[in-house]
Amino acid sequence: MKIVPNERDYPPKLCKAMRYSILNGGKRIRPILAMAAFDAVGGKGDTILPFACALELIHTYSLIHDDLPAMDDDDFRRGKPTVHRVFGEAVAILAGDGLLTGAFQTMSHGALEHGIDLEMSMEIIREISQTAGFSGLVGGQVMDIESEGRAADLPTVEYIHTHKTGALILASLRIGAKLGGASSDKLEAITRYGERIGLAFQIVDDILDVIGESSTLGKEVGSDEARKKATYPGVVGIEESKRLAENLVKEAIAHLTILEEKAEPLEEIARYLVRRTS
Amino acid sequence: MKIVPNERDYPPKLCKAMRYSILNGGKRIRPILAMAAFDAVGGKGDTILPFACALELIHTYSLIHDDLPAMDDDDFRRGKPTVHRVFGEAVAILAGDGLLTGAFQTMSHGALEHGIDLEMSMEIIREISQTAGFSGLVGGQVMDIESEGRAADLPTVEYIHTHKTGALILASLRIGAKLGGASSDKLEAITRYGERIGLAFQIVDDILDVIGESSTLGKEVGSDEARKKATYPGVVGIEESKRLAENLVKEAIAHLTILEEKAEPLEEIARYLVRRTS
Repeated sequence: MKIVPNERDYPPKLCKAMRYSILNGGKRIRPILAMAAFDAVGGKGDTILPFACALELIHTYSLIHDDLPAMDDDDFRRGKPTVHRVFGEAVAILAGDGLLTGAFQTMSHGALEHGIDLEMSMEIIREISQTAGFSGLVGGQVMDIESEGRAADLPTVEYIHTHKTGALILASLRIGAKLGGASSDKLEAITRYGERIGLAFQIVDDILDVIGESSTLGKEVGSDEARKKATYPGVVGIEESKRLAENLVKEAIAHLTILEEKAEPLEEIARYLVRRTS
Repeated sequence: MKIVPNERDYPPKLCKAMRYSILNGGKRIRPILAMAAFDAVGGKGDTILPFACALELIHTYSLIHDDLPAMDDDDFRRGKPTVHRVFGEAVAILAGDGLLTGAFQTMSHGALEHGIDLEMSMEIIREISQTAGFSGLVGGQVMDIESEGRAADLPTVEYIHTHKTGALILASLRIGAKLGGASSDKLEAITRYGERIGLAFQIVDDILDVIGESSTLGKEVGSDEARKKATYPGVVGIEESKRLAENLVKEAIAHLTILEEKAEPLEEIARYLVRRTS
């Protein structure tokens, strides 16, 4: 099936907006994590692909909606004008809806057409929908918006980060591990790794919003402070935030010993996440 | 599982908004159609329930997003202020996202926990996601927005109606029939019925927006004309629209003969759809 509509699909403006957002050069961290976890536990074949694509579709939908004027009102994303700046607010909302729906289309179609174990596939659809829903991604975004302009405490910042960013990163890894046939202790190890890198990833995002370069990041910096967002640097300061992120990555890597030499790509990803400048 | 979050679930504002929209006394036409089709083909048990609930969640999400200021900018729905009027635009967008995601959570959880045939369940998830996505519901809404203020022709009005309203009504019936174990000729008959009542339903909606009572409808009337929407009365006039709707219902009912006496509830629903005043 087509995961992304063609240039000439109907309605043209919607399909252009969906393509604009998904083909805009993201880092593809969630699909990469899913595939790395799949490989790390000895997964064979390409059954991970529809699920890896679905993760990126969900991530992209969440970015489009987060950037909307009613939310973060961001003008740039990945160095280009945000979807609502190019296609208008209505089409941006609907392009997000189309991508979110498309994630489930991609997974169900993939499971049926490529003979992927249906119980496993259904479990994954359940895990992804739960992660993306009100008790996950959507809940984190609501708290992010609600806490703006208030003096946030550490539990609130942690709630926002674990739900808004951490949950989907963790789910990506768990899905990869499950589909790769992980034993329960390997799934457990990858889960512990995922909880830590998910949080570290968002702490680094917060840090980059303070000290990063707009040209490298492809979006405006300083926007968290301007909007009085609940962030780690805001609550514990830059130096402590850096220390926290580094410790989390060390802990994450320590959990991977059970995977022996197959752990290497996941270790490398964890190190990249704190080193990155965009 | 909980299909709708509790009053005290977290984040409170999001859960309140989701409950406000879904427990707001809708007609529940889509679940009713799914259950009626299930019964009409001799379906047994309650395997239809998670899917019937999912249809209502998707319908409700689409109403919340359609009502947003960036779209139809409606202040009332079912006699009460719209979600964004009560909870703000950001929470309204996210409550819609939560309901859409919740539909897939409800279906996957239902399939796994209630031992519903997994291949059938996956087929249904595929059909619903396709119906809700860019080539269905979302596509219809984009064309609805895009055609505002332009002189619409009949093919455009038909595209909008079949996608925005007809597609989910048709899918509701097909899902019920499939899950009820319909033979291919019965599924075909219900599909033909569904195509016709889906279109009739939306034509009647258009008519009610012109000649209905705001107090009965629970929303403002005359808004289609004010916003220069592409509608049947706008293109072919009120009388011709009425005649079209009545003909469609007659044709729909004629397709049900294969179901014999089991067709009665579906016939009654079709007659109600043109008779209704809200």
